[in-house]
Amino acid sequence: MAGRIGVDLGGTKVLASLVVDGEVRRQEKRSTPTGGGPEGIVALIVELVEELGGPGDGVGVGAPGMVDVETGTVSRAPNLPGWDHSVRLGAMLQKALGGARVVVDNDVNVGALAEHRLGAGRGVDNLLCIFVGTGVGGGFVLDGQLRRGPHGMAGEIGHMIVHPGGRECGCGGPGHLEAYAGRSGLEREARARHAAGESTALVDIAADGRMKSSVFAKALDADDRLAAELVDDAVEALGIALSTATALVDLDLVVVGGGLADRLGPAFVGRMEEATRSRMFGTTALRCVPAALGDDAGTLGAALLVAGP
Amino acid sequence: MAGRIGVDLGGTKVLASLVVDGEVRRQEKRSTPTGGGPEGIVALIVELVEELGGPGDGVGVGAPGMVDVETGTVSRAPNLPGWDHSVRLGAMLQKALGGARVVVDNDVNVGALAEHRLGAGRGVDNLLCIFVGTGVGGGFVLDGQLRRGPHGMAGEIGHMIVHPGGRECGCGGPGHLEAYAGRSGLEREARARHAAGESTALVDIAADGRMKSSVFAKALDADDRLAAELVDDAVEALGIALSTATALVDLDLVVVGGGLADRLGPAFVGRMEEATRSRMFGTTALRCVPAALGDDAGTLGAALLVAGP
Repeated sequence: MAGRIGVDLGGTKVLASLVVDGEVRRQEKRSTPTGGGPEGIVALIVELVEELGGPGDGVGVGAPGMVDVETGTVSRAPNLPGWDHSVRLGAMLQKALGGARVVVDNDVNVGALAEHRLGAGRGVDNLLCIFVGTGVGGGFVLDGQLRRGPHGMAGEIGHMIVHPGGRECGCGGPGHLEAYAGRSGLEREARARHAAGESTALVDIAADGRMKSSVFAKALDADDRLAAELVDDAVEALGIALSTATALVDLDLVVVGGGLADRLGPAFVGRMEEATRSRMFGTTALRCVPAALGDDAGTLGAALLVAGP
Repeated sequence: MAGRIGVDLGGTKVLASLVVDGEVRRQEKRSTPTGGGPEGIVALIVELVEELGGPGDGVGVGAPGMVDVETGTVSRAPNLPGWDHSVRLGAMLQKALGGARVVVDNDVNVGALAEHRLGAGRGVDNLLCIFVGTGVGGGFVLDGQLRRGPHGMAGEIGHMIVHPGGRECGCGGPGHLEAYAGRSGLEREARARHAAGESTALVDIAADGRMKSSVFAKALDADDRLAAELVDDAVEALGIALSTATALVDLDLVVVGGGLADRLGPAFVGRMEEATRSRMFGTTALRCVPAALGDDAGTLGAALLVAGP
């Protein structure tokens, strides 16, 4: 019956699905091995593929970092243990799988592809899929095709400048969207303002851990003033970024996924839409809708890679 | 020998060229008729086409405003006299030319197409052509194709938000690039600051007329403090906009045209490149270069329209 294997390679877990006709038929999940470097990860993927019945018509992989789709080379993926240099993941995996067809792409591109073909962006040929999670990433579909760009850098919406001279991004740049709308950026700002004396429940709710998306949701529910202000800032920054992105490339739809957006729910997406529309040039009625595929977007999109570009 | 006719339809002049093998062989120029509305303009274009020996392999037209390339309909073109509604320019012109092939597109798209195929962007498949003149417009070439977008709105870089809550754009939106880098925006700001008591030579140099691009160039040469500050702001705003555009769609090259940029010369383009690179995410070495075709870009690009999309 064939089918394809989609692999979602993340910093903490590896998910693999057997996908037939655009549906997940079986799924396996493992923790990302912390030792063994790229070879250890390749061995794990081979194991998962075998458990799902072999490579079938091919194996697609969504990986973090910069990916050269032509060669299957992954670089700049500091979230993967032992992965501080360029790795020819595609070729290594193909060899380990006895010559099976293997395609590797960036995880955000893969998620955008899945939402476009099978999820909330189905039937829409010009869209941006934005993932608001720890950071903020995006993938464009333009005229029905995933836009990768000449250096595989397209869709870096998290590093748009929304407030010149503003809050510092994790990348070091000032005023980037990610500093205002990514979970890490929110946490940095919340801790700095708490340290400077502002009162907030965020630090107590987080206790000794990270401020997860659920921490922000709980603080909002408790009418925490700082949490509300930070989320207002995030909505404003997203409105600036999305209206600008639309002025540049002309879009019909924004699909919103990612852990923070998922946790804050459709009301957050509705606020994003309002913040965008109120800043739009021209009369285009841009829509923002929640992503539809959740955690399956990664493996579904990876399996789609195998079918072609 | 055939050849094609390219028409550059502007608010003050209409330029028509006979183009053979990507070169202007003959050119005719008239003032845009102020009476007669769309019919008067069609009649003038027919006259120019006949003077150039007939429509040959077809007639391409670059027009201001919003253009639906499929139907040749031009709307929102307030600079054209009597043109306050949608006009089916393509169909009208085709009929008046006895059924000749006619293609109409937006003037900025047409200029970008010309610079991509015949000018400073030759051989580069991913570029933005930005025109810094009275306003600021842009056209993207992505993967070798002009990006029009589903509503013909792609490339509206002048209406990117570069300074949230900042100077008001001609369109009414706050903080748009055009308010900082377009000649009109510079003039508005200069006159407002002069009226508020700032000393500047700009108003005297302009005398009773508009502050043309040459006025800013002269004031810069005379070390006028306000002119220098306004141009610094323009360079900064352009750097923000271009680094953001590159983060979004991934570009190799920015081609810089338009009256103000032409007048301020290669040094201005060099400053734009520096302002962009210093804000870039990632290591991509974006280049900014002056446009190569000058006033011929409009008719050359219009003639290119006839060859295909």
